[in-house]
Amino acid sequence: MKIDVCFSPILYPYYVENTDTIVVVVDIFRATTTMCMALNNGAASIMPVATVEEAKAYKEKGYLVGGERNVVKFEFGDFGNTPSEYTREKVEGKDVVISTTNGTHAIDMAEDCSCLIIGSFSNISTVADFCLSQKKDVLVLCAGWKDKFNLEDSLFGGALAEILVDKGAYNANFDAAGVALSMWKEAKPDILAYIKRGEHMKRLEAHGLLDVADFCLQSDTTPVLPIYNKNTKKISLQ
Amino acid sequence: MKIDVCFSPILYPYYVENTDTIVVVVDIFRATTTMCMALNNGAASIMPVATVEEAKAYKEKGYLVGGERNVVKFEFGDFGNTPSEYTREKVEGKDVVISTTNGTHAIDMAEDCSCLIIGSFSNISTVADFCLSQKKDVLVLCAGWKDKFNLEDSLFGGALAEILVDKGAYNANFDAAGVALSMWKEAKPDILAYIKRGEHMKRLEAHGLLDVADFCLQSDTTPVLPIYNKNTKKISLQ
Repeated sequence: MKIDVCFSPILYPYYVENTDTIVVVVDIFRATTTMCMALNNGAASIMPVATVEEAKAYKEKGYLVGGERNVVKFEFGDFGNTPSEYTREKVEGKDVVISTTNGTHAIDMAEDCSCLIIGSFSNISTVADFCLSQKKDVLVLCAGWKDKFNLEDSLFGGALAEILVDKGAYNANFDAAGVALSMWKEAKPDILAYIKRGEHMKRLEAHGLLDVADFCLQSDTTPVLPIYNKNTKKISLQ
Repeated sequence: MKIDVCFSPILYPYYVENTDTIVVVVDIFRATTTMCMALNNGAASIMPVATVEEAKAYKEKGYLVGGERNVVKFEFGDFGNTPSEYTREKVEGKDVVISTTNGTHAIDMAEDCSCLIIGSFSNISTVADFCLSQKKDVLVLCAGWKDKFNLEDSLFGGALAEILVDKGAYNANFDAAGVALSMWKEAKPDILAYIKRGEHMKRLEAHGLLDVADFCLQSDTTPVLPIYNKNTKKISLQ
C-alpha cells in the first residue's frame, strides 16, 4: 500500500487516485487535536461546520459551539480551539459544533471520500493501527494555513508515514510523502524547536498559546479514532 | 525582502501578497530549462501555449513548435521538451511555440503578475542577480507534476532562497521556503541522487532521458534572463 501527503485542502482533488483510500485530515494547531480531546472526554459527536454563521445558528439552537477564526475564539462560543477547554464535565454526552479557520475546511474538501478519519499527534498510534488493519492506501490531508503549506500538518504526515513504512506494509516513496518523512526525521530530536521556525507557531505565541502548541505535538495523549460520517455529517468514535 | 515558494500552480492565488512580487516560474524537468536553452541559442521569443490544439494551430501557420504531454513529444512537433534539441541552427531569430504538461500551465496561472521570469538551475545565478537588483519580494512558482508537489522544482526554490538569503537581503523564514531550503541543503552534496527518489525522475528514466535530467540539474549553463510580456504573451530576453 502507499501513503502520500497532500499539503493543502485545495490540492486534494489532484491526490485522490482511488475511492478506497483512507483520508486522514490533520490540523495539528489545533482543530483535529481539539476534536480528539473532546471525543476522548466523552463528547457524543463533533459537528464540523464551515462558516461562522452556521456555528452561530447552532448556538442559537442550544448546541455547544467552539472554534475560532484567525486564532481568535468566537465571541458567542462556548469554547475556543484549545484542547484543554473541552473537559469531560462540559462535553460528555453532547454534540459539539466546531468551526475553525482551516480544519473544518479540509474536512469539507474530502467529505465525499469513502473513509475520512481525524488525525493528530495525540492519536497517531491509533490512526496508524487503523490504517494497518484496513490495508488500504492512505492520504494525509493537511489543513494547512488558509490553503497554504504549513510545517506542523506536513510533519504529522511524515510521522505517520514513518510508522506505516517501518511496519513494512507501506511505501512512502512519493515526492510529497518523501519530503514529509525527511522533515519528520529532521524534527524528531526536538519537535517543538523545529516547529518554532513555522509561521503558525508565531501566531500562537502572539496569542499566549505556546503551551497549547507543546501539548498538540505530544503523541498518544488521546488514543481515539474519530471517523466522519458523511450522511450525518458528524464525527464520532467507532 | 522575502522569498517564498509556492509548491503548485493551483496554490498560486493563495501566495500572492502584493502586486509587486517577482514571480519565478520553474519547471526544471524540462520546460523552463528548455526555454532558457532556446533563448540562449538566439531564439527571438518563446510563445507558451496551454493546449495541444493551440500548438498544432501554430504549427499549421508555419511556426516552430515544441513540447510534450506526459513526457512524450507531439507527433507534429519540431522539437520535444529536451534542451539540447533547441540548437542555434534551428532556433536563432525564430519565435518558438512551446506547450508542456506543467510548465506552460504555471505561466498561465501567474500571467497577470507585474513581473514573471523563467527560472531553472541553468540560469539560477542570473535570476538571483536580477532579484537582488530589483529589491522586491520573490515567489518561486513550482510547475509541479499535474498540480501536485514535486521534488525538483521545490528544490530549485530552496537553491534560489539560499543564494538570496546568503546575500543578506532576503528572509526565507516561511513554512514552504524553509522546507525548500532544508531540501536543498540535504540534496546539495549529490543533487542527482536526491532527485532520483522523485517520481518525475522515474518517468524520465523510463523514457531514456536520464542524461537530460542530469543536464537540467547543472547550474548556470545558460545565463539568460527570460521575461514574460503579458501584452505580447511572449517570453524573451531583456
